[in-house]
Amino acid sequence: MIQAAIITIGDELLIGQVIDTNSAWIAQQLNHIGIPVIRRVAVGDHKAAIIEALEQESKTADLILMTGGLGPTADDITKPLLNEYFGGTMIFNEAVEQHLEKLFKDVLKRPLTERNRQQAFLPDNCEPLFNRLGTAPGMWFERNGKIYVSLPGVPAEMKILMEEEVIPKLQKKWNITPIEHRTLVTFGVGESNLADQLVNFEAALPEYISLAYLPNHGLVRLRLSDRSGKNTQLLEVQFKALQHILGDQVIVAEDLKMEEIVGKLLLNKKEIVATAESCTGGYIAHLLSRIPGASSYYDGSMITYSYEAKEGMLSVSHETLLEHGAVSESVVREMASGLLNRSRADYSIAVSGILGPTGGLPDKPVGTVWMAIGTREQIFTRKHHFRFDRAKNIELTAMYALNFLREVISDKLSN
Amino acid sequence: MIQAAIITIGDELLIGQVIDTNSAWIAQQLNHIGIPVIRRVAVGDHKAAIIEALEQESKTADLILMTGGLGPTADDITKPLLNEYFGGTMIFNEAVEQHLEKLFKDVLKRPLTERNRQQAFLPDNCEPLFNRLGTAPGMWFERNGKIYVSLPGVPAEMKILMEEEVIPKLQKKWNITPIEHRTLVTFGVGESNLADQLVNFEAALPEYISLAYLPNHGLVRLRLSDRSGKNTQLLEVQFKALQHILGDQVIVAEDLKMEEIVGKLLLNKKEIVATAESCTGGYIAHLLSRIPGASSYYDGSMITYSYEAKEGMLSVSHETLLEHGAVSESVVREMASGLLNRSRADYSIAVSGILGPTGGLPDKPVGTVWMAIGTREQIFTRKHHFRFDRAKNIELTAMYALNFLREVISDKLSN
Repeated sequence: MIQAAIITIGDELLIGQVIDTNSAWIAQQLNHIGIPVIRRVAVGDHKAAIIEALEQESKTADLILMTGGLGPTADDITKPLLNEYFGGTMIFNEAVEQHLEKLFKDVLKRPLTERNRQQAFLPDNCEPLFNRLGTAPGMWFERNGKIYVSLPGVPAEMKILMEEEVIPKLQKKWNITPIEHRTLVTFGVGESNLADQLVNFEAALPEYISLAYLPNHGLVRLRLSDRSGKNTQLLEVQFKALQHILGDQVIVAEDLKMEEIVGKLLLNKKEIVATAESCTGGYIAHLLSRIPGASSYYDGSMITYSYEAKEGMLSVSHETLLEHGAVSESVVREMASGLLNRSRADYSIAVSGILGPTGGLPDKPVGTVWMAIGTREQIFTRKHHFRFDRAKNIELTAMYALNFLREVISDKLSN
Repeated sequence: MIQAAIITIGDELLIGQVIDTNSAWIAQQLNHIGIPVIRRVAVGDHKAAIIEALEQESKTADLILMTGGLGPTADDITKPLLNEYFGGTMIFNEAVEQHLEKLFKDVLKRPLTERNRQQAFLPDNCEPLFNRLGTAPGMWFERNGKIYVSLPGVPAEMKILMEEEVIPKLQKKWNITPIEHRTLVTFGVGESNLADQLVNFEAALPEYISLAYLPNHGLVRLRLSDRSGKNTQLLEVQFKALQHILGDQVIVAEDLKMEEIVGKLLLNKKEIVATAESCTGGYIAHLLSRIPGASSYYDGSMITYSYEAKEGMLSVSHETLLEHGAVSESVVREMASGLLNRSRADYSIAVSGILGPTGGLPDKPVGTVWMAIGTREQIFTRKHHFRFDRAKNIELTAMYALNFLREVISDKLSN
């Protein structure tokens, strides 16, 4: 079976200045086409360290995918190093030069410097991979039946090269059996609880179909993968069986983010949501609006951090705030209805909580959150208690609030 | 010189389900106390792979720091594996058991299962590291002058064990010369531009003082590190010189995030900010409010994604929207003043733009952003053009808007 290793190159990875998101994204793409990743290694911009990593990973992997170190400055040493490692000669590539001329003239709007023109020199024994977004081409080398791919570290450039060049070439080169996946999403049920429910289901799966648990902030994604390459109906049958066993715990039978699930429901019903946020400070609005096309179903938000903002922007009553405190059922109720009065939205999400690290009260410890979903007919409320740090509590509050809205839209709570 | 390697363990890292934030954080901490990280490796929950990584990293590193694989389920194999690798015997630790009893009773509020009680078994040849937040203790092994530390993969638990146990023990064990750091932050100047300005400064630094460039979303942090361990005044002298050379390009002479810089300025002046966001959809509000204590200077936001919300929530005039479009100087002006009319804030930030992937117009291509800063006296506006993907354009818009506010608060634009 074909296996891959990922080598990420750059001093910034070893001083912790940059979180390596490239590796996770590449691993997802490779797994998706049926190439498991067996190791990920990060090394600095040092010749000996890069060569040692290449030697080591070549022992077990068939595909060695590198990112980083292709920039135009002196500390970017990957290209000359690979040229030497594979015994090539640097030659000038006119197609790359023309692309650089155009990129600097039309997009960057500054003259192409001599330093950047050097990006058009490439080893003669690699196949260049055209980078239409940036200055550094990718490179594809082959030796002893193994494939070595070098890509720029800039995420947007790396992604486009993977999608447009590397993945299609890998599939062609190795004639990899395509893996078929079916994914569903559950909410609010722990991974080990799900595993207990699925003991018999998993045991009865044919050996070419596997089940993966992918938990993240209250959601657990379950992915069935069929490696038979036979395109039988069995994957579909098993996926239906999985949905049947889990019943209402399944919130969608597709691989979607929570904000996409809610977005699709709203789009189908041609309805609109707005948010009234205290403790989450705009994070729910950010999640909804970062999805392209959200303007069809997301209207706006009132982020009311202070008592004054809650009163001024949402008309929460001064008495309610004094009597019950900002983190209370009465206040989220008034926030939800206050927002609906000020917007054309069909639904409002209101949240108020104490997310830490300080601010807890004897009867409202850190992690206490009240949330409400308002419709034009009714307001629903819930209380939660999250026990993590501020950042994770914000994330969980957002997920539970969006799921609450999902339940209301799906009519589960309409009476 | 003492060197470290980081091994992260878990199948979830190799299928790309989890972005490894632990490694970056650990690398920062170790670099900070003067232990450089030379490699980071991620392997799956497989015995052979973990042992191979231990063998390999032991060849060059003095400290091998592992995270992950310490949970109570069958796929968590790190603890028995390390017990075997170091030739130990598993013994029951009563202090850990007592902690588990208390954790389940008081915090998790469910019975301690037999499976979880097993977490109290530890190799007899390790020094246990007490984990007050979770069930899995850390472990500290020593062999042939090298130190091996195993920590849970849950970020909050890993961090507390690093801060409270590992860092102090490492400093004591190896008597590492403390490194002194001084950091300043610049904004809107490229890394290579800064490097050109600092050629002579860098060349004249004594060999025990080094300069690092840490760029991130429009900001470049410059960090001077003194490895002499002599606590002389020279670091301070060089830091002053650095500030002098860069002048106004330095926005703060401390290691702070942009939202912290703005927050500190507001706190000092006892003033309050509110935001009116269109294209950033609450992201600026999220940045401001995720800082603990932000309620002292952050009041609230109106997130107005639609024309209707801009008109209804911020009183932007229908005519202005029709005549100039939502992405225009006139509209951000009205958003900034509309918000000030509805809040007690001293400053408003207003942004409206087209961040992609679609929605560009001939005269307003994708990436066009108008922003305004409103005060009780005056409204300032600026236009930007960002050329990246949606996610990075949102990030850059937020940074440029917060920096614009910083300039206004600092009185640079008061006339």
